[in-house]
Amino acid sequence: MHKEQESKETSFLRSALTIDNPFITTDEFLDWFKSKNQTCLSEVCKISLSELEGWCFSDYPHQLVHRSGKFFSVGGVRVKTTFGPVPEWDQPIITQPEVGILGIITKVVGGVSYFLMQAKMEPGNINSMQLSPTVQATRSNYTCVHKGKLPPYLEYFKNRGKAKILVDQIQSEQGARFFQKVNRNMVVEVENDIQISDNFCWLTLGQIKQLLLKDNIVNMDSRSVLSCIPFVNMDLHQSSGVSFFLESIHIQNLARRITGFSKSLLGSMAKEAACYTLDEILGWYAEMRSKYYLAVEHISLDKMRGWIQTDCNIRQETGQYFSVIGVKVKVRGREVDQWSQPLLETPGHGLVGFLTQKINGVLHFLTCAKLCPGTIGVVEIGPTVTCSHVKERADGTTPQPFLHLFLNVSSENLRYSSIQSEEGGRFYHEQNQYMVIEISPDSKIDLKENYIWMTLWQIMELTKHRYFNIEARNLISCLNFL
Amino acid sequence: MHKEQESKETSFLRSALTIDNPFITTDEFLDWFKSKNQTCLSEVCKISLSELEGWCFSDYPHQLVHRSGKFFSVGGVRVKTTFGPVPEWDQPIITQPEVGILGIITKVVGGVSYFLMQAKMEPGNINSMQLSPTVQATRSNYTCVHKGKLPPYLEYFKNRGKAKILVDQIQSEQGARFFQKVNRNMVVEVENDIQISDNFCWLTLGQIKQLLLKDNIVNMDSRSVLSCIPFVNMDLHQSSGVSFFLESIHIQNLARRITGFSKSLLGSMAKEAACYTLDEILGWYAEMRSKYYLAVEHISLDKMRGWIQTDCNIRQETGQYFSVIGVKVKVRGREVDQWSQPLLETPGHGLVGFLTQKINGVLHFLTCAKLCPGTIGVVEIGPTVTCSHVKERADGTTPQPFLHLFLNVSSENLRYSSIQSEEGGRFYHEQNQYMVIEISPDSKIDLKENYIWMTLWQIMELTKHRYFNIEARNLISCLNFL
Repeated sequence: MHKEQESKETSFLRSALTIDNPFITTDEFLDWFKSKNQTCLSEVCKISLSELEGWCFSDYPHQLVHRSGKFFSVGGVRVKTTFGPVPEWDQPIITQPEVGILGIITKVVGGVSYFLMQAKMEPGNINSMQLSPTVQATRSNYTCVHKGKLPPYLEYFKNRGKAKILVDQIQSEQGARFFQKVNRNMVVEVENDIQISDNFCWLTLGQIKQLLLKDNIVNMDSRSVLSCIPFVNMDLHQSSGVSFFLESIHIQNLARRITGFSKSLLGSMAKEAACYTLDEILGWYAEMRSKYYLAVEHISLDKMRGWIQTDCNIRQETGQYFSVIGVKVKVRGREVDQWSQPLLETPGHGLVGFLTQKINGVLHFLTCAKLCPGTIGVVEIGPTVTCSHVKERADGTTPQPFLHLFLNVSSENLRYSSIQSEEGGRFYHEQNQYMVIEISPDSKIDLKENYIWMTLWQIMELTKHRYFNIEARNLISCLNFL
Repeated sequence: MHKEQESKETSFLRSALTIDNPFITTDEFLDWFKSKNQTCLSEVCKISLSELEGWCFSDYPHQLVHRSGKFFSVGGVRVKTTFGPVPEWDQPIITQPEVGILGIITKVVGGVSYFLMQAKMEPGNINSMQLSPTVQATRSNYTCVHKGKLPPYLEYFKNRGKAKILVDQIQSEQGARFFQKVNRNMVVEVENDIQISDNFCWLTLGQIKQLLLKDNIVNMDSRSVLSCIPFVNMDLHQSSGVSFFLESIHIQNLARRITGFSKSLLGSMAKEAACYTLDEILGWYAEMRSKYYLAVEHISLDKMRGWIQTDCNIRQETGQYFSVIGVKVKVRGREVDQWSQPLLETPGHGLVGFLTQKINGVLHFLTCAKLCPGTIGVVEIGPTVTCSHVKERADGTTPQPFLHLFLNVSSENLRYSSIQSEEGGRFYHEQNQYMVIEISPDSKIDLKENYIWMTLWQIMELTKHRYFNIEARNLISCLNFL
């Protein structure tokens, strides 16, 4: 490995293992975050789609668009697929062809990376502000379509030479809601001090992972960027070497404190411990891609079967799926002070979960091939379970595989659980329960062909090359090594 | 590396370095191939699109489709992009959502892999038969839509346990002609003897590469599969270690014979010799993806601006671009004896070329980000030059960068040149000149931002993950280590 890369990955890992931040303790952060949320003067109210300012329905195809032609649009798609229990359906989908930037500035102090995070309000957030990346900007944002201010710190991502690029990857968003949408996920490093604006603060990765134990603090875009962060690839054949490894990167005092599931996670980052090779996993992916069929045809919103479009909103007849609604927003501390926009609203909570198990002593994650109408390249890899209607999918005629293991998990097997929000710029109060559970090495489970076990190192390696969907990446970002 | 993988990669490399085949010499192969071509009783004649049997124009959208709904269809697209000199155009495009199999059976004899290749006729081939993979089958083929025979050897790719899977990757085809088409590229290995049907023979990779020095023998699908074959990742910092490495895998007698460009190629497969890291290349890819815009709208064939549709064919007004034509085929030795189908016909030869240069003593290839209407994920990486109208693009108002270096190359800088055909199942007599040239390490060249240098190891590594377009992969498959 290149020396430089090794040092970058080591300071990321040290940061993930550090919760004592001399600049701001986690308790101080929580106070600061609470006061930010209290003083954030924002007001979001639902309005009819016909009242949306600057938005209109285009004639043909019939879509909800912004008059500037920028931002995003909502159109209809007719989906046909051989994947899953439903062979054909219509649905609205968001199209946003521009590639935005989700970027975090870091700075190394004492061998530890600090991350510049922002308390940011989004109209769909359940709690007004959440912790977002340093920069979270669509191209329309930073080319000033709405004639507001430029997002602060944007120049560190746009101008070569202002910062060292550590992570720079194209990653997808929800294929069930967006048509082939991607963002550029970036982490850059500055050497000199930079001025910290209001609403920004420096946190260690360990602190952010502490905050991910709580509900609805770290937003979806932050989780997406954090999931791209590389850690040192350990050349260990067994997790028993973890302590030795940590000592070698001078985290002796931590080496003793890391036990249980955290130790399993670190062991799962070893390069050569997996039950399948990466080539075998690529072969499985190729088989999934060739086995299942997906055809997506763009249609007019008013041609969607099973959907009702009124002046007020666009909703599914059964009321179980999501709706397209309008909101009007008034706020201080954003680029512009007021605007209105469409959002998608989904009833109830969803669940996103990884089932894990030790195989040959090494922790593996059960991943699953998924086809969604907006997925680039048809197939992405997701976590063991992704479902939006937990109750029906657990009891219905086509129960979601493995869901019952999550719903009936004992505290002894529960490794992680929290409620996290999806992107508040597009989704209204959309929340998922994020869970990781571990079953004992002796448990036998039946796997359908669209499931495969991978180590954490393999997931991180394939994440670089755009195999993993946002649900899987978001859940991976929540894993805590402490 | 896993032991098993190392042995697989070593026998591939030995095969690439072996031209003495005890089963059939290259001269004997050429005689056999010639006689096959002479005895292949096939007749291909152009007919009007309206005379195509089993094909018709659908009403809305207006497309050329097979009555079964299978095989492929030809529709129109309207393309808008910020990439390249033309911001907007209409064109026909082939849609074929099914994923086919391109697969080669191998067998190791004396530590060397032998490849089971097939002399196969395709209607668009300039010379009737070319050398194809063992199996080259669309899903319609092997699910028997045309009620013919099943392709021989298919079971080695479909049934687990019949053979060991060595390569299994999803790879794309021409994004300028196909809408998001991919195939499964496979190499499998058998242990036991298998019966060799008529039209099949075992060749070493070294022999296939000898045949790639000649024009129009090895077909596009074979080249695509061959480009996915992994070779041993050498942990060498300099190409001077190549001889030592070859001796360590028991190819002593070859180690001395490999000199010049072949030695440079082997040196370019070393893991840590590149001027950019893989992470830096992913960052460049992310920048390309976010910088350029591409929107593709499906439209009816009769709505395409600048195109003329008659009973006979669909052609562009200027006559410079490709046309959609019909052919009627009579043949023996295929699944069915006669059929008719549409093909695309392009006037003149194109050129596909890699510019190479030694940087810090290691050979690098100049690669180029490309956007085509049918490209999955919008951006793929191509060779230095890809162009279909060599004359105009060399002299025109927007000359193709670097094209003049290929057209005016001295024999001293020419490393590879041949004429190769594109897929004869879809293209009528379509040929490209494939070239690799090397400029001296002192030559200074100006690079626009959509170009980046990579080593051969990096190209092979990224090829696994679907970054490289078929033109680049095809040219890589032609590289000869002898």
